Amino acid sequence: MLKDFEKNKPEEKSVLSAEIKELRAKLMAMQEPLREKKLPILVLIEGWSAAGKGSLIKELISELDPRFYHVESPAVVPESEARYPFLYPFANAIPENGSLTFMDSGWMESLVRKLMHREITEKEYRRRVRQVNEFERQLRDGGYLVLKLFLHIDQEEQKERLSALLSNPETTWRVTEEDIWQHKEYKHFRNAYEEFMDKTGDTIHWHVLDASRRKTTLRDALRLLVRQTEKALAEGRYVGSPFDEDFPLIKMPKLADVDLTPTISDEDYKKELKRLQDRLSELHNLIYLHRIPVVICYEGWDAAGKGGNIRRVAYPLDPRGFDVMPIASPEPHELNRQYLWRFWKRLPRTGHICIFDRTWYGRVMVERLEGFCTEKDWKRAYNEINEFERVLTEWGAVVIKFWIHIDQDTQLARFTDRQNTPEKQWKITDEDWRNREKWPQYEVAVNEMLEKTSTEFAPWYIIESNDKKYARIRTLKIIVKALEKACENHFEHTLG
Amino acid sequence: MLKDFEKNKPEEKSVLSAEIKELRAKLMAMQEPLREKKLPILVLIEGWSAAGKGSLIKELISELDPRFYHVESPAVVPESEARYPFLYPFANAIPENGSLTFMDSGWMESLVRKLMHREITEKEYRRRVRQVNEFERQLRDGGYLVLKLFLHIDQEEQKERLSALLSNPETTWRVTEEDIWQHKEYKHFRNAYEEFMDKTGDTIHWHVLDASRRKTTLRDALRLLVRQTEKALAEGRYVGSPFDEDFPLIKMPKLADVDLTPTISDEDYKKELKRLQDRLSELHNLIYLHRIPVVICYEGWDAAGKGGNIRRVAYPLDPRGFDVMPIASPEPHELNRQYLWRFWKRLPRTGHICIFDRTWYGRVMVERLEGFCTEKDWKRAYNEINEFERVLTEWGAVVIKFWIHIDQDTQLARFTDRQNTPEKQWKITDEDWRNREKWPQYEVAVNEMLEKTSTEFAPWYIIESNDKKYARIRTLKIIVKALEKACENHFEHTLG
Repeated sequence: MLKDFEKNKPEEKSVLSAEIKELRAKLMAMQEPLREKKLPILVLIEGWSAAGKGSLIKELISELDPRFYHVESPAVVPESEARYPFLYPFANAIPENGSLTFMDSGWMESLVRKLMHREITEKEYRRRVRQVNEFERQLRDGGYLVLKLFLHIDQEEQKERLSALLSNPETTWRVTEEDIWQHKEYKHFRNAYEEFMDKTGDTIHWHVLDASRRKTTLRDALRLLVRQTEKALAEGRYVGSPFDEDFPLIKMPKLADVDLTPTISDEDYKKELKRLQDRLSELHNLIYLHRIPVVICYEGWDAAGKGGNIRRVAYPLDPRGFDVMPIASPEPHELNRQYLWRFWKRLPRTGHICIFDRTWYGRVMVERLEGFCTEKDWKRAYNEINEFERVLTEWGAVVIKFWIHIDQDTQLARFTDRQNTPEKQWKITDEDWRNREKWPQYEVAVNEMLEKTSTEFAPWYIIESNDKKYARIRTLKIIVKALEKACENHFEHTLG
Repeated sequence: MLKDFEKNKPEEKSVLSAEIKELRAKLMAMQEPLREKKLPILVLIEGWSAAGKGSLIKELISELDPRFYHVESPAVVPESEARYPFLYPFANAIPENGSLTFMDSGWMESLVRKLMHREITEKEYRRRVRQVNEFERQLRDGGYLVLKLFLHIDQEEQKERLSALLSNPETTWRVTEEDIWQHKEYKHFRNAYEEFMDKTGDTIHWHVLDASRRKTTLRDALRLLVRQTEKALAEGRYVGSPFDEDFPLIKMPKLADVDLTPTISDEDYKKELKRLQDRLSELHNLIYLHRIPVVICYEGWDAAGKGGNIRRVAYPLDPRGFDVMPIASPEPHELNRQYLWRFWKRLPRTGHICIFDRTWYGRVMVERLEGFCTEKDWKRAYNEINEFERVLTEWGAVVIKFWIHIDQDTQLARFTDRQNTPEKQWKITDEDWRNREKWPQYEVAVNEMLEKTSTEFAPWYIIESNDKKYARIRTLKIIVKALEKACENHFEHTLG
């Protein structure tokens, strides 16, 4: 692929310039249609050191409206971002609908570097390659046009460019030790790049561009960009089809079969609450020390007691080490991106706990039932969400998901109580009553969600919450157990 | 203040508990009214190491709805945030309307630590104290309730607490070298804390709480929070009055007196454009090397040629080192915070260039004219903006502001051209025509803005743009000159 790469023939300069001008005009004219069709475009520009990635981007954007594009360089992650999953900076940098993002080095550079430096194992590398493939597919299926370019120069060309930079005192600093090391290890890098492209080219094709002549490279990049954009505009936003990966699922009961009668005495409740909260407080210290990230998800019927439950879990935690994230309807800038984007942004750092009060599962509940996304979208989401949660657990996170469950009578009693108690009235809205009418539809959706997304790595727990106190003790027990296990695993892992 | 601080007398535990319970219930009941009145509350909790800041926050939030509060610990800034102005993490962490933010250590801890470690000079410290006072006043004037607490324990009490933590293997790690150092230097720290409170207590009062008995501290904090919130709810959101600080202003001509006839020949334009862009490219390297941040602001009439002008400035820049920030109407989460918040968030890192396509000056133009803020708000904004820009320049930023100017006939010609050219039609909207009708009102507002905010440290430049090419050469020249000066100053500064 790279070894026997055939360079472009030299071309007549004026012909080249004319073509570039024409392509630029076409790209310019596409800005508005893209905005209308809400098409987001991600152009990933990878390649050798000194291949001219920056210069290419400079030329590509030179006539574009700044409202229309962004340039991102997420591969160089500051220390703080090392505390997030590997894909975090890239997932954060995806474009908004109707706009273009040029990514100056991305997941390829990040992974190949780490592999060459032996900062990750072969096994971890393969895992991340799989994550990359999933990430790219999710973008494509979510209507993103992803264009992947690799700027290629041979070893000789790289030598010339690096020497030129080094010999000029004003540009010497641009050549890093990494660059020189890459040049020395050119063949090893070439193999690594080739292998990476080989393993990540099925869903979204790689385009290797001859980067030895800047103008030709620009023309080639523009051609690809214009053609693919034209095609996407003609075809409209792609909507991926549902698919089923074979995730290790845990069999879940139907909601209707859940016994909601369990209760707890006040005395036992007090005793257990104290014991479990004290233990959770200790575990929070360990979690922080071992830098284990924790994601706790709450979903459930309106008035099921999510809020009070969350407060009992949060109470023993050090406020500097956790966040409760209430998830409301997405804001415009969130709606304008792939639906998981706003959750990527809210992930906890390593050693921190994030409690989500409602989650990404809105996709397969409210968004499904209210028609906020297409049928294909929510049907695809089960697998996408499983993939997302697998990324989290592979990163080392503990992921726990609760469905806080009550029956319809209990809900009615609580709604009525809220309506009749002045201090609680704000907690009950017309929307709650409307949602209540859709109980049967929601029940179908929730059952399907539980069936398809309760994985061994991120299981669902149905929490019987007709007795709120019983429910609180249940969630606390589950969390304590999961954190204890995580700390033990960490300990074993450390001992080797 | 701290030296002769009188401790609380021990109180009957059951009485204390009853009062806490009552206060908590009051706070709970305030959540909804706060949301309705859109009141944001910032509770800054400062104090000694081991005084119990975290525990206090834990108790304060224990019964609150998570949608209602946030806990932030911005004083511990990761490396990457050291590349922003000192106030950056705090300005980023201010609460949304209708919600509470508890800040676990803030600007006090950050500044006192840096002073004690001699990481900043006395002069820089005084500057930052002034910035803090301005920042707090801007929050208050923008309708924020700011409550500043200092948790006080004496040296003996601190010793006991640190010893207790150190003697328990599970908590040893919680005591840092900094904590031990503070304990050794207790008296120096006490003086520094006192001095800081003394210098920052005029606008917003400091409350020193006896932190030697946790329950009493909690009660005292709750009392303050409940009382001040009650008061704010009764009085409604505060709107600060306009004021005039004596900034070093540059006299600006009235727009009507600006000669718009200057033009440039195509030949000169090409020559100058090439020369200036080449120079700007060199300067961008230096800026990056010296870590000088650059903020370039564009304002101007619709169709004045801002976009094309920005593109010519951006073209020679390395795309990894600059951003163009198009500023549109604020999104809901932006509208729900002090108006400068969304600009704080978009500041460039040191060594980077940020070009704002429209800016914070919307406050005194569109927001003024369309009634999006009160008269007091926009009248106060002149000084607030001068303060904001002074913070930027004191941080080391180059701030350049352009008013891209044309006359009404030129605008009409360009509007008509856009209307009649299919590829340009998207650039012209009904709003543009409506704004055009308000030209006289805008002219008054712009003149006032230029008069009141063209400071020596962040001057306005009126750019004659009836001839767009002339305008581009003008802005490039101004930018090149300003960056050359900044690099020289940096050089002199480095030489001492």
